[in-house]
Amino acid sequence: MGGQLSEELGTWAASWRHRHLLGLESLSAADITTLLDTAEVLSGRFKSQGQKLDLLSGKTVANLFFENSTRTRNSFSLASKRLGADTIEFASSGSSVSKGETFIDTAKTIEAMGADAVVVRHATPGTASLLSEHLDCSVLNAGDGAHEHPTQGLLDILTIRQKRGSLRGLTVGLVGDIAHSRTARSNIWGLQKLGAHVIVCGPATLVSRKWEAHGVEVAHRLDDILPKCDVLNLLRIQFERQAIRPFPSVREYALLYAMNAERMRRAKPDVLIMAPGPINRGVEITPEVADGPHSVILQQVGNGIAVRMAGLWLSINANCNKAGVSASDRS
Amino acid sequence: MGGQLSEELGTWAASWRHRHLLGLESLSAADITTLLDTAEVLSGRFKSQGQKLDLLSGKTVANLFFENSTRTRNSFSLASKRLGADTIEFASSGSSVSKGETFIDTAKTIEAMGADAVVVRHATPGTASLLSEHLDCSVLNAGDGAHEHPTQGLLDILTIRQKRGSLRGLTVGLVGDIAHSRTARSNIWGLQKLGAHVIVCGPATLVSRKWEAHGVEVAHRLDDILPKCDVLNLLRIQFERQAIRPFPSVREYALLYAMNAERMRRAKPDVLIMAPGPINRGVEITPEVADGPHSVILQQVGNGIAVRMAGLWLSINANCNKAGVSASDRS
Amino acid sequence: MGGQLSEELGTWAASWRHRHLLGLESLSAADITTLLDTAEVLSGRFKSQGQKLDLLSGKTVANLFFENSTRTRNSFSLASKRLGADTIEFASSGSSVSKGETFIDTAKTIEAMGADAVVVRHATPGTASLLSEHLDCSVLNAGDGAHEHPTQGLLDILTIRQKRGSLRGLTVGLVGDIAHSRTARSNIWGLQKLGAHVIVCGPATLVSRKWEAHGVEVAHRLDDILPKCDVLNLLRIQFERQAIRPFPSVREYALLYAMNAERMRRAKPDVLIMAPGPINRGVEITPEVADGPHSVILQQVGNGIAVRMAGLWLSINANCNKAGVSASDRS
Repeated sequence: MGGQLSEELGTWAASWRHRHLLGLESLSAADITTLLDTAEVLSGRFKSQGQKLDLLSGKTVANLFFENSTRTRNSFSLASKRLGADTIEFASSGSSVSKGETFIDTAKTIEAMGADAVVVRHATPGTASLLSEHLDCSVLNAGDGAHEHPTQGLLDILTIRQKRGSLRGLTVGLVGDIAHSRTARSNIWGLQKLGAHVIVCGPATLVSRKWEAHGVEVAHRLDDILPKCDVLNLLRIQFERQAIRPFPSVREYALLYAMNAERMRRAKPDVLIMAPGPINRGVEITPEVADGPHSVILQQVGNGIAVRMAGLWLSINANCNKAGVSASDRS
Repeated sequence: MGGQLSEELGTWAASWRHRHLLGLESLSAADITTLLDTAEVLSGRFKSQGQKLDLLSGKTVANLFFENSTRTRNSFSLASKRLGADTIEFASSGSSVSKGETFIDTAKTIEAMGADAVVVRHATPGTASLLSEHLDCSVLNAGDGAHEHPTQGLLDILTIRQKRGSLRGLTVGLVGDIAHSRTARSNIWGLQKLGAHVIVCGPATLVSRKWEAHGVEVAHRLDDILPKCDVLNLLRIQFERQAIRPFPSVREYALLYAMNAERMRRAKPDVLIMAPGPINRGVEITPEVADGPHSVILQQVGNGIAVRMAGLWLSINANCNKAGVSASDRS
Repeated sequence: MGGQLSEELGTWAASWRHRHLLGLESLSAADITTLLDTAEVLSGRFKSQGQKLDLLSGKTVANLFFENSTRTRNSFSLASKRLGADTIEFASSGSSVSKGETFIDTAKTIEAMGADAVVVRHATPGTASLLSEHLDCSVLNAGDGAHEHPTQGLLDILTIRQKRGSLRGLTVGLVGDIAHSRTARSNIWGLQKLGAHVIVCGPATLVSRKWEAHGVEVAHRLDDILPKCDVLNLLRIQFERQAIRPFPSVREYALLYAMNAERMRRAKPDVLIMAPGPINRGVEITPEVADGPHSVILQQVGNGIAVRMAGLWLSINANCNKAGVSASDRS
């Protein structure tokens, strides 16, 4: 079965040369399309056969999370298991790091245990890229500070593509705390490469004009962009990433930026409502919108496993074939 | 192999229509017997073939525990793995819930990751039932406040049935903190349905006379009921569930209710000594009784995995066949 | 495959009679050689076939860790999984132990869940041995206080044997906090049995003269023993195990005992540099030595999985064949 599926996947595997998945900024439109197509094939196959695939059986995927995460960590674990891989979990608390070990030494130890891929989350931008320079195994970025969160970007884009067929010509509004959001950054690079127009929208303290230099439209009032967005992606206010936050309060934020029933009436009739989750009902989104017919929030969750299956399989496969090259991360 | 075993299990599967396992109060005697019979077949098959069964291979079981538990959580995990399923673990600490996500949203997210069953423990009565109304996958109650803990009730009943052949006509004493015990409640409903006579026994602050309205005998002195009990199930004092506890102190409790060697001499010669664990040696049970020939405490642990295998397989199977109906939980 | 590999492993299995792996002090030279040879065969086979072995499929290995550990716990987990076993994790925090359950009851509960082996780490010397007297399943010591850490000793010895062919006649220096180190003790017993000469080296407060009675050379200055050591194993300063520590400070320690570039020039040209990890760069070892050509630190990590595969398989196999005898632990 694995052999047959491998053959079907041959086209994508052949066109994929990256040993690591560090960010979307450094990938081409063709790379991103390969990831999305592979995600569709792998998740479709898992569902249709009702059994784990054996594409990564005998392989080991290590989760190395230095920030709390249940959702992303479990999503990567399930993606690994559905490809037949074993998983091991490393967290910062109670680990060797608290005994004085350096971050790189921890990762090299995990690799020495036979890990074929390390999935890493860390509060410091550039961590995944740094690791990829020191490890021979594949490195997948599960979020590095406010830098990138490529699989989140991919799952958002896959969800839009499933609903609209193509990203080309769509206008996507990213609403919220853009300044501290790795999800926003991965979305921006990925969406632009596939031909979408991106608007970032939020309070001036959290949305910089600098994005205009990257071809991104900047707005500070949600009501201004409502009528032209095909997609609204409602990011969380990352209070934990804001050193100073005199503005906005949760109440002010909800007043100005929450997607609610009244605003839905002024949005495009076929607007897609997205959120990376965990959602704060009453803050960035109200219940009637979160649970309404335009919401694709739960489809996003399912697609998270699909794109992680693709990222793991393509990266590990490229690494095993020694044909892989490390994706340089320019940001 | 799975196919053949499935065929053997066909009788039970055909008679089982519940997509969820929420409590024993809402099940019929025939339902409970189906669960016990299925538990025997599944655990017997696992032991005889010395290999995992593949009845749930390709399925995912999620543990969603909002209260600490090592024992029950691991028991469900092992039950899942021995049926061939993958497992994922969600705990309240460090999870999305601490980021403001609602309980239902957390569960729906887990379901969207492809969980076929969610095993839930929560301090609030009715939580499992609430979840079952919002999820399409199976929900298994691993303890909801002081309401029900159906798999604990089932494992207790299975252990008695293995030792005595039938529950009919037996007198079972539940000793301890009945007021705060979900284990007591699940035992009461299950035991009565299968024809046993139930006595609840403990200090008046922890054992209400209201149970008499349900056909349960109420006693406040262990010494009074000793001579007539075929089974004594010694519950833990759930200090963590007692808002006010002026009485009893641990010392008083041990004096009045601990099962010890002296009391054993006044009990029926073939009395079964049970405890849901973790046991507090010297509080509700003394070492010579816990480790004595009447104790079936460790058999209970083994049966815990058996009844959880049955609950998981029957529920998921009913759900997949779309023939299942949600068991209404009346309490 | 399992059958064929089992046949190949028959020689070793036949010569192994221990149901438990409690320490190296109680094993013979032939026993240790059997463990090392089995480790090589199992890890070699896992690598060459690129798939899990199925030698322990259907078996359950329980990790019961009462001290924090990421490295050793994950190493045992991966060893278990690569043999096809399922694993369950028990930690002291949040477990039944905090509800008043005794250590032995916790372990017996785990066994009653069907564990075929319990891997135990505990701050109290003798814990693994104690457990082995109460359980029918296999017990593997993953560290008991300052007593023994047999798999760490085995992985160190295996690494030396791979590099030098034999231990006979080699001089091995163990440097650091010998008084509180279970790793030191397991190394001493194992190395001596295989014919190596052992020197323990460190401050007088941490290295007792009593070791001379066991045929171990005692030194207090690293510079004195540098020229004659074939292997230097640089242990961590276990600050957490020192009740009183007026000397040395980290700075003094680094000055007197850190292996650095200057000391490397005075060491044997083919000296092996080892460390059990997690390493403290700048304390017991400097970066140029840790990352230099003499360092085998990462090979040690890989060998950790190999010896744990061997320990698990041999012990469980001996236990299943009922031919096993409990290794008496004399210390």
